[in-house]
Order: sequence, then C-alpha cells, then structure tokens
Amino acid sequence: MHQIKIFDTTLRDGSQGAGVSFSAEDKLKIASALDNFGISYIEGGWPGSNPKDEEFFKLIKIKKIKLKNSKLVAFTSTRKPKTNIKNDNNIKKVIESGVNVVTVFGKSWDMHVKYALKTTKQENLKMIFDTIKFFKSNNFEVIYDAEHYFDGYIHNKKYAFETISKAIQAGADYVCLCETNGGVLPEYIEKTVKETIKEFPDVKFGIHAHNDCECAVANSIIAVRAGCSMVQGTVNGIGERCGNANLCSIIPSLQLKGKYHCVPVKNLKNITELSRYVDEIANLVPVPSMAYVGSAAFAHKAGVHVSAVEKKSQTYEHINPKHVGNKRRILVSDLSGKSNIISKADELAIDLEKQSGNFKGIIDVVKNKENAGYQYENADGSLFILTKKVENKYKNFFTLKSYRVSVEKNKDGSIVSEATVKLDVNGKEEHTVAEGEGPVNALDKCLRKALIKFYPEIKNVLLTDFKVRVINSDANTAAKVRVLIETKDKKQSWGTIGVSENIIDACWQALSDSVEYKLLKK
Amino acid sequence: MHQIKIFDTTLRDGSQGAGVSFSAEDKLKIASALDNFGISYIEGGWPGSNPKDEEFFKLIKIKKIKLKNSKLVAFTSTRKPKTNIKNDNNIKKVIESGVNVVTVFGKSWDMHVKYALKTTKQENLKMIFDTIKFFKSNNFEVIYDAEHYFDGYIHNKKYAFETISKAIQAGADYVCLCETNGGVLPEYIEKTVKETIKEFPDVKFGIHAHNDCECAVANSIIAVRAGCSMVQGTVNGIGERCGNANLCSIIPSLQLKGKYHCVPVKNLKNITELSRYVDEIANLVPVPSMAYVGSAAFAHKAGVHVSAVEKKSQTYEHINPKHVGNKRRILVSDLSGKSNIISKADELAIDLEKQSGNFKGIIDVVKNKENAGYQYENADGSLFILTKKVENKYKNFFTLKSYRVSVEKNKDGSIVSEATVKLDVNGKEEHTVAEGEGPVNALDKCLRKALIKFYPEIKNVLLTDFKVRVINSDANTAAKVRVLIETKDKKQSWGTIGVSENIIDACWQALSDSVEYKLLKK
Repeated sequence: MHQIKIFDTTLRDGSQGAGVSFSAEDKLKIASALDNFGISYIEGGWPGSNPKDEEFFKLIKIKKIKLKNSKLVAFTSTRKPKTNIKNDNNIKKVIESGVNVVTVFGKSWDMHVKYALKTTKQENLKMIFDTIKFFKSNNFEVIYDAEHYFDGYIHNKKYAFETISKAIQAGADYVCLCETNGGVLPEYIEKTVKETIKEFPDVKFGIHAHNDCECAVANSIIAVRAGCSMVQGTVNGIGERCGNANLCSIIPSLQLKGKYHCVPVKNLKNITELSRYVDEIANLVPVPSMAYVGSAAFAHKAGVHVSAVEKKSQTYEHINPKHVGNKRRILVSDLSGKSNIISKADELAIDLEKQSGNFKGIIDVVKNKENAGYQYENADGSLFILTKKVENKYKNFFTLKSYRVSVEKNKDGSIVSEATVKLDVNGKEEHTVAEGEGPVNALDKCLRKALIKFYPEIKNVLLTDFKVRVINSDANTAAKVRVLIETKDKKQSWGTIGVSENIIDACWQALSDSVEYKLLKK
Repeated sequence: MHQIKIFDTTLRDGSQGAGVSFSAEDKLKIASALDNFGISYIEGGWPGSNPKDEEFFKLIKIKKIKLKNSKLVAFTSTRKPKTNIKNDNNIKKVIESGVNVVTVFGKSWDMHVKYALKTTKQENLKMIFDTIKFFKSNNFEVIYDAEHYFDGYIHNKKYAFETISKAIQAGADYVCLCETNGGVLPEYIEKTVKETIKEFPDVKFGIHAHNDCECAVANSIIAVRAGCSMVQGTVNGIGERCGNANLCSIIPSLQLKGKYHCVPVKNLKNITELSRYVDEIANLVPVPSMAYVGSAAFAHKAGVHVSAVEKKSQTYEHINPKHVGNKRRILVSDLSGKSNIISKADELAIDLEKQSGNFKGIIDVVKNKENAGYQYENADGSLFILTKKVENKYKNFFTLKSYRVSVEKNKDGSIVSEATVKLDVNGKEEHTVAEGEGPVNALDKCLRKALIKFYPEIKNVLLTDFKVRVINSDANTAAKVRVLIETKDKKQSWGTIGVSENIIDACWQALSDSVEYKLLKK
C-alpha cells in the first residue's frame, strides 16, 4: 500500500466556485469535518487576500481548535516583484495566521510572468526562491504549488524546470504540479509527470488538477500512477469555473481499486456523509449523479438492471455501496418493470402480493402522474399512498373541504401570512386558522392544529426539508411548480410531492401527503 | 485528422437517468437537434422494452421525418436463450421500427451469462451469432455492444475474446467495448483496448463508458487514443446511476485538442446550445460547472484571475469560449476585487468612473446582501439597481405602499388566486387588482396593470424563467426562500433576485426589480 497525502483545498480553491460563499464559521465546520475524516492537509484560505480568510485563522487561534488528524495550511503567492520580502503584506499575514504549513504558489509559465506578473523571468525565479527560503527559515513546512506547470512545460520546458529547481533549492517539502486551466488531456499529464519526476528523482511531487475538460479525477489518478504522492482537490469538486479535482471520487478509487492508502480505512464509509455535509454548508444542491456519493450513484431504473442486480449485485454495481456509506436505490418510473415495483414495495414495507399484486395498475398510475410533472424517486411517502390507493388498501383520515391563504404587506414593510383550513375528520368539521412566517408555514400550522386532537402521533412529525422546482419554466409565472417535502419522526424520514400551477396548492398536496403517510403507516 | 463516429444514446441510455423522463415528442425534438448538430448515429430507443420507445419510432415513420446528417438506430438485446430468433418479440419490434441500423447488446462477462441470462457460455455465443447474422441478412448495419467487456476481460479474457470473435464472424460492422458498470480506471482501459485491437486488428472498435468513477470522459478519450473510432455517450452525460460519457466534453476535447474530427467544424459552436436544450427538455437544472458548456465554465471569481484574464485570456482560459458557443462571465461576490467590479460594470454598461467609482462601497453592499442569502451571479438586473443606489445615480419610478395576495381552494377543488397592489407612481396612488394562475402570476399582472399607463415600454417585457430555491432548508417551512426571475425585452435579457422567509415577498422583490431594471436602463 502506497501512502498518498490528501490535500484538501475546499476552503480556499473551493470557495472560488460560482455560487459558493463560506462564512468563517462555515469554514470552521468544514475543517472539523475534514479533520474527522482523516484528510492529511487542510488549506484554510489565503489570509492576505480577503478578510474572511484572515478571520478564519483568527477563529482557529481564539477558539484554540486543535486538529486531530490534519495539518492546517495557509495559502499565499510568492513575494511581489522587486520588493523586499519583509515588507510583503501577504507573507506577513501568513506568519500572523499561526500555522506551520504554507502553500506558496509561483509562476511556471513564462507567459504568465510577462502578462500577469509583468516582471522578468529572472525576477520570478528569485521571488520563488526568496519566498520559500523565508518560510523554511521560519520553520514552516512548505508546499510549492507550481501554477500552470503543464502549460508552462508545453511552451517553455526549460524555464518550467528552472522554476522547480529554484523551489527545491530553497527547501520546498513538496512540489505540486498544478494544471491550473484544466485544459490538459490525460495522455499529456502522464508524459509530463513522468518526465518531470525523471528530472528530479528525489523530490516529492503532488498533483493539482482542474475539471475544464471533465478529466480532473482521471488526471489526478494518472498522476499518482506516474509517481505523485500528494493529491490536491476539493470535496465534491467545487471550485473556480468547472471546479477542482473531486476528492470524493479520487479517494475511493485510489483506496478501493488502486491499493493506495489515503485516509484511515474505517473512515471511507463516511465519505458520502462528508459530501452531503459540505454541499449543505455551501448551500449547493447535491448532484444526484456524483460518483460514489451521489444519491443516484447506486440507483437502478431500467427493468433489466433491477432484475439482475437483485440476483447478484456485481452485475450492475462496481463496488458495494456500503464501503462509501451510500446505498442502493430502486427507482420507480414509467421505465419500470415488475422487479422495480417489487423491490420498492419491499423497501417501503408495502404489503404487496408478489404473485397477485396489481403491478400494471401501479405502473400505469405512476406513468400518468409523471406525465403531469410528478416524480416519485424522492417521494416515497406519496408513492406509498398511491400504491395503497391502487391496491384498494387506502384508508381516509381526513378530507379537505377548503383552505384560504393570504399574505399582506403593509406600508411599514411588515408582512402578515394567514391561513385557514376546513377539514372533514371522521365526519366532524374542523375549521382552523393560523399565522406563520410565510404562507406555507401558516398552512402547515393550520393542518396540524386541525388534526392533532384526533391523531396525537403527528406531534413528533417534523418537516426537515422543503424544495421548490419550477417545471416548464418557459411558461413564466404561470408555470407548473413541483414541491418536495422531507419529513421525519423519531424512527424514519419520508418524502412527499405536490405539483400544480399554483405554488400554494403544490405545497398543500405535499404537506397533506406528509401527514397522511404517517397516519397510513401506523 | 482522424474521423471519429459519434454515437449518441441520450434517448436510450440517457433516459435511464434518475429524474429523466422523455415523452415520444420530447425524443423527436432531441433527435432533430442531434441531427442538426451533425451526430453520426442517434440511438432512438429499445422498441421491444417499452411502449414509449416503440411510439417514437412510429412517429418518425408517420411524420416521415428524414434525418439530414444522422443514422437512426434501434437498440435490442441478443435473442433469448434457447429460442428461435424468428419468435423473438424484441427483434421483431426492431424490424417493425423501420430503421436500417441496430445496436445488439450481448454478454461478454461469463458471470453475467450465468446469473443474469441463466444460460450456458456456449448458448450465449450462439445468441450473439444468431442475432447479428439475422440482422445482417436483413441488410442492417450492426453495431455490437459488448456489455461489461472490461469486467469480462478481467475475469475471463479468453471467453470475452470468444464473444467478440462470434460477433465479427456474424458480420458486425462495429464492436463497441462497453464499460457498463463504470468502475474501471483509465490505465486498465488503455491496456484492454490496446490488447483487444491487437487481437482483432481489422475490426472497427467503439467505446461506451459510464461515469461511476468520474472517469467516463477521460476513459473515452484514452480509448480513442488507443485506437477506437466510435464513441458512444449522451448529451450532458445523463444516464443510469452516475451517467454515461458526456459527449459535450468529449467532442470539444477531441476536436479542439486531439485533432480528431467528430462533427462538422462549423457546428461545434452550437454545442452549448445543444446542452441547454437537452437539459430543458429533460427538465434538468443545467449544472453550472459543466466543462465547456456550463454557465460557470468560463466564469471568473477570484480577483487575481479576473485581473489576469482581462490582460490576456489564455492566462485562465484553456480555450476561447466562443469556439463552443459559450462566453466569459465575471462574477461579483465578496471575493471580488476592483477588477471584478470594473469588468462587470462594463458588461452591464454601468457608467462607473474607473478612477473615482465607489468600488469599496459596492463590494461592501454585495457582501452584506450575500450574507443575507442574496446572490448576484445570475441577477445582473438586481446588481445594476444596487450599483446605481450606491453610486447615488438611482432614480425612483414607483414605491410600494402595500400588497395583498390570497389563494382560496373550495370544496369543488377550484382555486382562485387574487392579488391587489397599491403603488405610489410619481405622486399618484395606483390601486390595482388581478387574478392569476397562481399567486405570483396574479401579483405580476397587478404590477403591470398599475404601471403600464405611466411606462408603456414595459409592454414588451416578458418573464421567461422563474426559479425558486429554499436556502437554510433545515429550518423547515419557515426557511428562507430565494427567487430568481429571468426577464427579456426585444433586445436583451436580465436576471433579478428576491430573498425572504416569505415566498410571496421574495417573488415580489424579484418582480419589482425586474421592471425597475427596464425603467432604469432606459
């Protein structure tokens, strides 16, 4: 087993992703999750470049946070051209940050030296040397990020080598070869890494890849096979433009298939949780199709796949989903066969007769509903109710007679949201009213108010997630809206769905299914 | 320039993706877009497996649709074990579909023969032979998809070779090596393809990769470098589990960097449009970070990147975005430097003094707003208004005094949505009421009704898109909601944003910004 150092830059390069904005507190939470997961290096930010990153390092000091498994790293550029390093503000801020490990990025590509730095090639070499030397003499561990190394190598190999020589002479502990623009294809990565290692056989090299050709993961794995012993990347591949190399794909591939050791073996099963946690904090919608950790990574939809995977999982699963903390899902859709319905029924504990069950009836209803915009892949609760109805095992707990929702904004800017609901519950009319933080919240309160005395068990039922999606959005504000609600009680969680041209009514459908599922399940 | 045949399976393998559901009409639209783009082969579906696919081929016949550039392909499995091919329903349906090209998939992995087909290795070889022979004798072009070829090769290379031999003997025109489970890493793809081609030097090979290790694109490119001359994949990589190889990444990489010819040169600039079109029809949210075609693929956020890319685009752009019909975007966020603000101001035609502009003021306001949940990356209209306010160049066109929105659902199921709005327009009070398809539509109508006599130019302003996102969704139905509205007039389009705990108020903010932008721009 070769040891590979995993270097996470979610908090630095990742925060440059479109749509990502971490507060200093967010960064603390992610750093702690990465540490628990067993990442070797965590790059916390560039203290010289923005106040939020500076604040992060301050918080670490103030709160006296000690990482158990990871080394905390600050990022900075080489000193500015033609200045004395002692006056360089960026570098001062790294010293003040209190870390012992620094990433220094420098230019490998002469074009960048000319156009971005506006200095001479000679001065750039001095900047690399001075900066690394300075940190080494202050007892830092130094990772040298050779920015644009692969492009530099194509255009001026001799100069690219000189920059690395300087970094090594100055005492860099690692030289990380950066494919900054993400435009280099696998074959060239392999060739360049091999030739570079041949030139500098005693140096520890890393790889830092970007995803602009959708090859960042493969390029990182190929670089490891070619001799790199450090991989830089981010959780879920978030980062500038198309993102960085995705550690959630690289780590399982190296560890489960490549016989490399990246994180403690027992931790690998926490990688799905880590992925979802970072998306949650970054406020990004998790991409279902993500390798290993996506909610669809082990989801089977085609009838032939479901039928085969039920017989032997390896037929359509490249690994056991448990190894990465993920799970198999059987999807029910209009592509479903009988196997999908039976598996799903098992999963939902629906009492479906394997011989006599009305599979065709269920598939037909699902198909019609899907044509109207419903989707049951994340709405097990609503699917359960639908199945009960088709099977004539449905029991009615309440019937809506009417509701009214109003939102009023007044001159002073205050907003009042009120809902009223009229239900028939076991022959009794219940008419309730409630105010809420918004119309949906008001409606939810009303429904519960009406039902709780009949069904006290709904007291422990909590909404945990609420998603709104506009479908047919080209039809402007009159478009159809799909609402998904996630609900939990003490034992389990379930999803329900509503679809309507009226957003309030879509919410009502999902809310009412959410309670109905709980009551039907009893 | 080597010619590579691009084989699109968006309509077949793509439709197996989680969350994807194409109607037969959807499929016609996509087939026509693929044909215009110049794809060599379009796999329309598996007529034997589901009625929707059958309907698609029928529609093609009934509507007498002739593809200009593409060959239409039907997909099917080899005949069933121990049956006469003439009685095989799947195969009959292919004949009936009216196509001249068929993909026959067969088993290469002996484990699958045993567990999924439940037959003997010998019978599987016969099934492959019989099926291909049958189609060849009916004048079909046959592509043989060697399912699980790479896994088969690992476990029983001799048998995997035998299956291919049979396909070739029967007259297959292409043998496509399928990495069905998506679990094979690049190095092994290269080795297997090279050894297979060495064994069968006169055969035309293809590659069909899945993305379960996030390596499908790299694996496809590597297979082409190793000698394959056909690539199977889908638009945006949609497909079962983690998806198929993404043609929107493979085609530009091969054509712009690899010197291969995949589609007519003049068409490559249409690939971003193709990608968005398929997402729209599939009703999927386009992933901003997608290579080449994503809205963030050439988006720059970090101050140093923006400043460099403005000096020389190659510093942080691996290709010219125009070559794939995409464009550069400068993002304004709390990571922004002065360069981001200046570039953005240029883009929005904001009259910002480069010397005296209040950059810090703008960045501070953006930062505060982002902390409250706003995001300006897709809300140029709202950013424009904000900038005008900071720069004291804002002009007020109307002021909200109050609004009221109500939604009532009655016993008969009918829903009425009504809104009233009270505005102060140039000192005059305007009080309007309107009904709509839903509360947002009613509010929109009210606002326009109140303003149109003062500002007739809003007549040509149309809402084109409407997105709702729940932020902090763990706070259940009282969570904050972010609404993004896309608006256009005859000349341009703009995005506006609203954030509130109240979904109606978030919509109001975005609606009102949408109109205000139009008036301010005048």
